[in-house]
Amino acid sequence: MAPLSTPKSGDALFASVERVNAELFTLTYGAIVRQLITDLEEVDEVNKQLDQMGYNIGTRLVDEFLAKSNVSNCVDFKETADTIAKLGFKMFLGVTATVTNWDAEGTTCSFVLEDNPLVDFVELPDTCQGLHYCNVLSGVIRGALEMVSMKTEVTWVRDMLRGDDAYEMRVKLTKQVPEEYPYKDDD
Amino acid sequence: MAPLSTPKSGDALFASVERVNAELFTLTYGAIVRQLITDLEEVDEVNKQLDQMGYNIGTRLVDEFLAKSNVSNCVDFKETADTIAKLGFKMFLGVTATVTNWDAEGTTCSFVLEDNPLVDFVELPDTCQGLHYCNVLSGVIRGALEMVSMKTEVTWVRDMLRGDDAYEMRVKLTKQVPEEYPYKDDD
Repeated sequence: MAPLSTPKSGDALFASVERVNAELFTLTYGAIVRQLITDLEEVDEVNKQLDQMGYNIGTRLVDEFLAKSNVSNCVDFKETADTIAKLGFKMFLGVTATVTNWDAEGTTCSFVLEDNPLVDFVELPDTCQGLHYCNVLSGVIRGALEMVSMKTEVTWVRDMLRGDDAYEMRVKLTKQVPEEYPYKDDD
Repeated sequence: MAPLSTPKSGDALFASVERVNAELFTLTYGAIVRQLITDLEEVDEVNKQLDQMGYNIGTRLVDEFLAKSNVSNCVDFKETADTIAKLGFKMFLGVTATVTNWDAEGTTCSFVLEDNPLVDFVELPDTCQGLHYCNVLSGVIRGALEMVSMKTEVTWVRDMLRGDDAYEMRVKLTKQVPEEYPYKDDD
Protein backbone atom coordinates (compact mmCIF):
# COMPACT_ATOMS: atom_id res chain seq x y z
CA MET A 1 0.00 0.00 0.00
CA ALA A 2 1.24 3.49 -0.75
CA PRO A 3 2.02 5.50 2.36
CA LEU A 4 -0.43 8.23 3.27
CA SER A 5 0.73 11.53 1.87
CA THR A 6 2.14 13.92 4.44
CA PRO A 7 1.57 17.67 4.34
CA LYS A 8 4.18 19.62 2.38
CA SER A 9 6.40 22.16 4.07
CA GLY A 10 5.47 25.81 3.60
CA ASP A 11 8.51 26.41 1.41
CA ALA A 12 7.82 23.40 -0.80
CA LEU A 13 4.21 24.45 -1.07
CA PHE A 14 5.06 28.02 -2.05
CA ALA A 15 7.57 26.73 -4.61
CA SER A 16 4.93 24.44 -6.14
CA VAL A 17 2.38 27.12 -7.04
CA GLU A 18 2.24 29.63 -9.88
CA ARG A 19 3.37 33.04 -8.75
CA VAL A 20 3.40 36.65 -9.83
CA ASN A 21 5.52 39.61 -8.76
CA ALA A 22 4.67 40.84 -5.26
CA GLU A 23 4.98 44.51 -6.19
CA LEU A 24 2.42 44.07 -8.95
CA PHE A 25 0.08 42.49 -6.41
CA THR A 26 0.72 45.25 -3.86
CA LEU A 27 0.04 48.01 -6.39
CA THR A 28 -3.06 46.22 -7.69
CA TYR A 29 -4.44 45.86 -4.19
CA GLY A 30 -3.63 49.53 -3.53
CA ALA A 31 -5.59 50.44 -6.66
CA ILE A 32 -8.66 48.62 -5.27
CA VAL A 33 -8.46 50.39 -1.94
CA ARG A 34 -8.09 53.78 -3.61
CA GLN A 35 -11.00 53.03 -5.91
CA LEU A 36 -13.23 52.02 -2.99
CA ILE A 37 -12.33 55.16 -1.06
CA THR A 38 -13.25 57.29 -4.07
CA ASP A 39 -16.50 55.43 -4.70
CA LEU A 40 -17.78 54.83 -1.18
CA GLU A 41 -16.38 57.86 0.67
CA GLU A 42 -17.11 56.37 4.12
CA VAL A 43 -14.11 54.54 5.58
CA ASP A 44 -16.40 52.09 7.42
CA GLU A 45 -18.01 51.14 4.13
CA VAL A 46 -14.57 50.59 2.58
CA ASN A 47 -13.62 48.32 5.50
CA LYS A 48 -16.82 46.33 5.02
CA GLN A 49 -16.29 45.99 1.28
CA LEU A 50 -12.66 44.86 1.64
CA ASP A 51 -13.75 42.26 4.19
CA GLN A 52 -16.45 40.98 1.82
CA MET A 53 -13.98 40.79 -1.08
CA GLY A 54 -11.61 38.86 1.15
CA TYR A 55 -14.39 36.51 2.21
CA ASN A 56 -15.22 35.72 -1.42
CA ILE A 57 -11.55 35.17 -2.22
CA GLY A 58 -11.07 32.97 0.85
CA THR A 59 -13.92 30.66 -0.10
CA ARG A 60 -12.10 30.05 -3.40
CA LEU A 61 -8.52 29.83 -2.15
CA VAL A 62 -9.34 27.08 0.33
CA ASP A 63 -9.83 24.67 -2.57
CA GLU A 64 -6.37 25.36 -3.99
CA PHE A 65 -4.93 25.04 -0.51
CA LEU A 66 -6.51 21.66 0.19
CA ALA A 67 -5.68 20.37 -3.27
CA LYS A 68 -2.00 21.29 -3.11
CA SER A 69 -1.00 21.10 0.54
CA ASN A 70 -1.83 17.44 1.27
CA VAL A 71 -3.41 18.68 4.49
CA SER A 72 -6.46 16.55 5.22
CA ASN A 73 -8.39 16.91 8.44
CA CYS A 74 -7.12 19.13 11.22
CA VAL A 75 -8.15 17.64 14.56
CA ASP A 76 -9.15 20.91 16.18
CA PHE A 77 -9.13 24.68 15.89
CA LYS A 78 -5.62 24.84 17.29
CA GLU A 79 -4.17 22.64 14.57
CA THR A 80 -6.21 24.53 11.98
CA ALA A 81 -4.77 27.86 13.15
CA ASP A 82 -1.22 26.50 13.01
CA THR A 83 -1.81 25.16 9.52
CA ILE A 84 -3.09 28.51 8.27
CA ALA A 85 -0.21 30.39 9.86
CA LYS A 86 2.59 28.12 8.66
CA LEU A 87 1.24 26.80 5.36
CA GLY A 88 -1.66 29.02 4.27
CA PHE A 89 0.11 32.37 4.60
CA LYS A 90 3.24 30.91 3.05
CA MET A 91 1.43 29.39 0.11
CA PHE A 92 -0.38 32.58 -0.85
CA LEU A 93 1.71 35.50 0.38
CA GLY A 94 5.14 33.91 0.75
CA VAL A 95 5.35 34.85 4.44
CA THR A 96 4.48 33.01 7.65
CA ALA A 97 2.45 34.20 10.61
CA THR A 98 2.91 33.43 14.30
CA VAL A 99 -0.02 32.01 16.25
CA THR A 100 -0.14 33.38 19.77
CA ASN A 101 -2.28 34.75 22.63
CA TRP A 102 -4.56 31.71 22.96
CA ASP A 103 -7.43 32.10 25.39
CA ALA A 104 -8.06 29.44 28.05
CA GLU A 105 -10.83 27.73 26.02
CA GLY A 106 -8.64 27.34 22.94
CA THR A 107 -11.20 29.13 20.78
CA THR A 108 -9.53 32.52 20.28
CA CYS A 109 -6.00 33.24 19.10
CA SER A 110 -3.98 35.85 17.26
CA PHE A 111 -2.12 35.70 13.96
CA VAL A 112 0.86 38.04 14.08
CA LEU A 113 2.53 39.14 10.86
CA GLU A 114 5.79 41.00 10.83
CA ASP A 115 6.20 40.93 7.08
CA ASN A 116 3.13 41.90 5.08
CA PRO A 117 3.39 42.21 1.30
CA LEU A 118 0.09 44.09 1.13
CA VAL A 119 1.48 47.25 2.66
CA ASP A 120 4.78 47.91 0.90
CA PHE A 121 4.98 51.61 -0.03
CA VAL A 122 1.67 52.36 1.70
CA GLU A 123 1.14 55.42 3.86
CA LEU A 124 -2.33 56.34 5.04
CA PRO A 125 -3.35 59.97 4.65
CA ASP A 126 -4.90 61.62 7.72
CA THR A 127 -8.37 61.32 6.19
CA CYS A 128 -8.12 57.50 6.26
CA GLN A 129 -7.22 56.93 9.88
CA GLY A 130 -10.17 54.59 10.47
CA LEU A 131 -9.27 52.44 7.49
CA HIS A 132 -8.36 48.79 8.04
CA TYR A 133 -6.17 48.66 4.96
CA CYS A 134 -5.56 44.91 5.24
CA ASN A 135 -9.18 43.97 5.85
CA VAL A 136 -9.08 41.75 2.80
CA LEU A 137 -6.80 39.40 4.77
CA SER A 138 -9.16 39.00 7.71
CA GLY A 139 -11.95 38.39 5.20
CA VAL A 140 -9.90 35.68 3.48
CA ILE A 141 -9.34 33.89 6.81
CA ARG A 142 -13.05 34.11 7.67
CA GLY A 143 -14.13 32.87 4.23
CA ALA A 144 -11.62 30.02 4.11
CA LEU A 145 -12.51 28.80 7.61
CA GLU A 146 -16.21 28.89 6.86
CA MET A 147 -15.59 26.47 3.98
CA VAL A 148 -14.15 23.98 6.47
CA SER A 149 -17.14 24.41 8.78
CA MET A 150 -15.68 26.92 11.21
CA LYS A 151 -17.55 30.17 11.72
CA THR A 152 -15.22 32.87 12.99
CA GLU A 153 -15.00 36.56 13.79
CA VAL A 154 -11.74 38.16 12.73
CA THR A 155 -10.69 41.62 13.90
CA TRP A 156 -7.49 43.67 13.70
CA VAL A 157 -5.91 44.53 17.06
CA ARG A 158 -2.53 45.81 15.85
CA ASP A 159 -1.73 47.53 12.57
CA MET A 160 1.67 48.96 11.61
CA LEU A 161 -0.03 51.49 9.33
CA ARG A 162 -1.55 52.88 12.52
CA GLY A 163 1.77 52.99 14.32
CA ASP A 164 1.72 49.56 16.03
CA ASP A 165 4.78 47.31 16.01
CA ALA A 166 3.21 44.43 14.06
CA TYR A 167 0.03 43.26 12.33
CA GLU A 168 -2.18 41.23 14.65
CA MET A 169 -5.52 39.68 13.78
CA ARG A 170 -7.68 38.22 16.52
CA VAL A 171 -9.55 35.10 15.33
CA LYS A 172 -12.47 33.90 17.42
CA LEU A 173 -14.17 30.59 16.69
CA THR A 174 -17.88 31.20 17.21
CA LYS A 175 -19.39 28.00 15.85
CA GLN A 176 -18.08 24.72 14.55
CA VAL A 177 -20.45 22.82 12.31
CA PRO A 178 -19.75 19.07 12.29
CA GLU A 179 -18.75 17.96 8.82
CA GLU A 180 -21.24 15.81 7.02
CA TYR A 181 -19.78 12.99 5.03
CA PRO A 182 -21.34 12.19 1.69
CA TYR A 183 -21.34 8.47 2.48
CA LYS A 184 -21.81 6.13 5.43
CA ASP A 185 -19.41 3.38 6.41
CA ASP A 186 -22.07 0.66 6.18
CA ASP A 187 -23.58 1.72 2.84
CA MET B 1 37.64 48.08 -14.34
CA ALA B 2 34.51 46.10 -13.53
CA PRO B 3 32.70 44.87 -16.65
CA LEU B 4 29.46 46.63 -17.52
CA SER B 5 26.54 44.69 -16.12
CA THR B 6 24.54 42.77 -18.70
CA PRO B 7 20.77 42.42 -18.57
CA LYS B 8 19.52 39.41 -16.62
CA SER B 9 17.58 36.64 -18.30
CA GLY B 10 13.82 36.67 -17.79
CA ASP B 11 14.00 33.56 -15.62
CA ALA B 12 16.77 34.95 -13.42
CA LEU B 13 14.87 38.20 -13.12
CA PHE B 14 11.64 36.51 -12.12
CA ALA B 15 13.52 34.37 -9.59
CA SER B 16 15.09 37.47 -8.05
CA VAL B 17 11.89 39.29 -7.13
CA GLU B 18 9.45 38.80 -4.25
CA ARG B 19 6.40 36.87 -5.38
CA VAL B 20 2.90 35.97 -4.27
CA ASN B 21 0.54 33.22 -5.34
CA ALA B 22 -0.87 33.77 -8.83
CA GLU B 23 -4.36 32.58 -7.88
CA LEU B 24 -4.54 35.15 -5.09
CA PHE B 25 -3.58 37.82 -7.63
CA THR B 26 -6.12 36.56 -10.16
CA LEU B 27 -8.94 36.54 -7.62
CA THR B 28 -7.94 39.96 -6.29
CA TYR B 29 -7.96 41.40 -9.80
CA GLY B 30 -11.33 39.75 -10.42
CA ALA B 31 -12.67 41.43 -7.29
CA ILE B 32 -11.64 44.85 -8.66
CA VAL B 33 -13.33 44.24 -11.98
CA ARG B 34 -16.52 43.05 -10.29
CA GLN B 35 -16.48 46.06 -7.98
CA LEU B 36 -16.06 48.47 -10.88
CA ILE B 37 -18.89 46.85 -12.81
CA THR B 38 -21.16 47.21 -9.77
CA ASP B 39 -20.14 50.82 -9.13
CA LEU B 40 -19.89 52.22 -12.64
CA GLU B 41 -22.52 50.14 -14.47
CA GLU B 42 -21.29 51.22 -17.93
CA VAL B 43 -18.79 48.75 -19.43
CA ASP B 44 -16.99 51.57 -21.28
CA GLU B 45 -16.41 53.35 -17.99
CA VAL B 46 -15.04 50.14 -16.47
CA ASN B 47 -12.64 49.78 -19.40
CA LYS B 48 -11.48 53.37 -18.91
CA GLN B 49 -10.98 52.92 -15.18
CA LEU B 50 -9.01 49.66 -15.58
CA ASP B 51 -6.79 51.36 -18.13
CA GLN B 52 -6.17 54.27 -15.77
CA MET B 53 -5.36 51.91 -12.87
CA GLY B 54 -2.94 50.07 -15.13
CA TYR B 55 -1.34 53.34 -16.21
CA ASN B 56 -0.74 54.32 -12.58
CA ILE B 57 0.69 50.89 -11.80
CA GLY B 58 2.91 50.96 -14.90
CA THR B 59 4.47 54.29 -13.95
CA ARG B 60 5.54 52.66 -10.66
CA LEU B 61 6.60 49.25 -11.93
CA VAL B 62 9.05 50.70 -14.43
CA ASP B 63 11.30 51.74 -11.54
CA GLU B 64 11.49 48.22 -10.14
CA PHE B 65 12.10 46.92 -13.62
CA LEU B 66 14.99 49.27 -14.36
CA ALA B 67 16.48 48.76 -10.89
CA LYS B 68 16.48 44.97 -11.07
CA SER B 69 16.85 44.05 -14.74
CA ASN B 70 20.19 45.77 -15.48
CA VAL B 71 18.56 47.00 -18.68
CA SER B 72 19.90 50.47 -19.42
CA ASN B 73 19.06 52.27 -22.65
CA CYS B 74 17.19 50.51 -25.41
CA VAL B 75 18.35 51.85 -28.76
CA ASP B 76 14.91 52.06 -30.34
CA PHE B 77 11.25 51.14 -30.00
CA LYS B 78 11.94 47.68 -31.43
CA GLU B 79 14.46 46.82 -28.73
CA THR B 80 12.16 48.31 -26.12
CA ALA B 81 9.27 46.15 -27.27
CA ASP B 82 11.44 43.01 -27.17
CA THR B 83 12.64 43.88 -23.68
CA ILE B 84 9.08 44.32 -22.40
CA ALA B 85 7.94 41.08 -24.00
CA LYS B 86 10.83 38.91 -22.81
CA LEU B 87 11.80 40.53 -19.51
CA GLY B 88 8.96 42.79 -18.39
CA PHE B 89 6.15 40.27 -18.72
CA LYS B 90 8.33 37.59 -17.19
CA MET B 91 9.39 39.70 -14.24
CA PHE B 92 5.87 40.68 -13.26
CA LEU B 93 3.54 37.95 -14.49
CA GLY B 94 5.90 35.02 -14.89
CA VAL B 95 4.99 34.59 -18.58
CA THR B 96 6.54 35.89 -21.79
CA ALA B 97 4.87 37.60 -24.73
CA THR B 98 5.69 37.34 -28.43
CA VAL B 99 6.34 40.54 -30.38
CA THR B 100 4.94 40.34 -33.87
CA ASN B 101 3.09 42.09 -36.71
CA TRP B 102 5.47 45.06 -37.05
CA ASP B 103 4.38 47.75 -39.47
CA ALA B 104 6.78 49.01 -42.14
CA GLU B 105 7.80 52.10 -40.12
CA GLY B 106 8.72 50.05 -37.05
CA THR B 107 6.41 52.10 -34.85
CA THR B 108 3.52 49.66 -34.34
CA CYS B 109 3.68 46.05 -33.18
CA SER B 110 1.66 43.46 -31.33
CA PHE B 111 2.28 41.68 -28.05
CA VAL B 112 0.72 38.23 -28.16
CA LEU B 113 0.10 36.32 -24.93
CA GLU B 114 -0.91 32.71 -24.91
CA ASP B 115 -0.72 32.32 -21.17
CA ASN B 116 -2.37 35.07 -19.14
CA PRO B 117 -2.58 34.73 -15.35
CA LEU B 118 -5.21 37.49 -15.17
CA VAL B 119 -7.95 35.39 -16.69
CA ASP B 120 -7.78 32.01 -14.95
CA PHE B 121 -11.31 30.92 -13.98
CA VAL B 122 -12.86 33.95 -15.68
CA GLU B 123 -15.98 33.75 -17.80
CA LEU B 124 -17.71 36.89 -18.96
CA PRO B 125 -21.47 37.02 -18.54
CA ASP B 126 -23.47 38.15 -21.57
CA THR B 127 -23.99 41.58 -20.04
CA CYS B 128 -20.23 42.23 -20.13
CA GLN B 129 -19.50 41.52 -23.76
CA GLY B 130 -17.94 44.95 -24.35
CA LEU B 131 -15.61 44.57 -21.38
CA HIS B 132 -11.86 44.57 -21.97
CA TYR B 133 -11.18 42.46 -18.91
CA CYS B 134 -7.39 42.78 -19.22
CA ASN B 135 -7.36 46.52 -19.82
CA VAL B 136 -5.14 46.94 -16.78
CA LEU B 137 -2.34 45.30 -18.79
CA SER B 138 -2.55 47.68 -21.72
CA GLY B 139 -2.60 50.53 -19.19
CA VAL B 140 0.54 49.19 -17.51
CA ILE B 141 2.38 49.11 -20.86
CA ARG B 142 1.26 52.65 -21.70
CA GLY B 143 2.24 53.96 -18.25
CA ALA B 144 5.61 52.23 -18.18
CA LEU B 145 6.54 53.39 -21.69
CA GLU B 146 5.57 56.96 -20.90
CA MET B 147 8.10 56.93 -18.05
CA VAL B 148 10.83 56.12 -20.57
CA SER B 149 9.67 58.95 -22.86
CA MET B 150 7.57 56.94 -25.29
CA LYS B 151 3.96 57.97 -25.76
CA THR B 152 1.88 55.07 -27.02
CA GLU B 153 -1.66 53.98 -27.80
CA VAL B 154 -2.40 50.41 -26.74
CA THR B 155 -5.51 48.57 -27.88
CA TRP B 156 -6.73 44.98 -27.69
CA VAL B 157 -7.22 43.27 -31.03
CA ARG B 158 -7.63 39.67 -29.86
CA ASP B 159 -9.08 38.46 -26.56
CA MET B 160 -9.66 34.82 -25.62
CA LEU B 161 -12.50 35.86 -23.30
CA ARG B 162 -14.24 37.02 -26.48
CA GLY B 163 -13.55 33.78 -28.29
CA ASP B 164 -10.26 34.63 -30.02
CA ASP B 165 -7.35 32.20 -30.04
CA ALA B 166 -4.91 34.41 -28.10
CA TYR B 167 -4.52 37.77 -26.37
CA GLU B 168 -3.10 40.41 -28.69
CA MET B 169 -2.41 44.03 -27.82
CA ARG B 170 -1.52 46.49 -30.56
CA VAL B 171 1.05 49.03 -29.38
CA LYS B 172 1.51 52.16 -31.47
CA LEU B 173 4.31 54.63 -30.75
CA THR B 174 2.82 58.07 -31.24
CA LYS B 175 5.59 60.29 -29.91
CA GLN B 176 9.09 59.80 -28.66
CA VAL B 177 10.38 62.55 -26.41
CA PRO B 178 14.19 62.74 -26.46
CA GLU B 179 15.51 61.97 -23.00
CA GLU B 180 17.01 64.90 -21.18
CA TYR B 181 20.08 64.09 -19.21
CA PRO B 182 20.55 65.81 -15.89
CA TYR B 183 24.17 66.57 -16.76
CA LYS B 184 26.23 67.48 -19.81
CA ASP B 185 29.40 65.75 -20.89
CA ASP B 186 31.41 68.95 -20.82
CA ASP B 187 30.17 70.22 -17.46
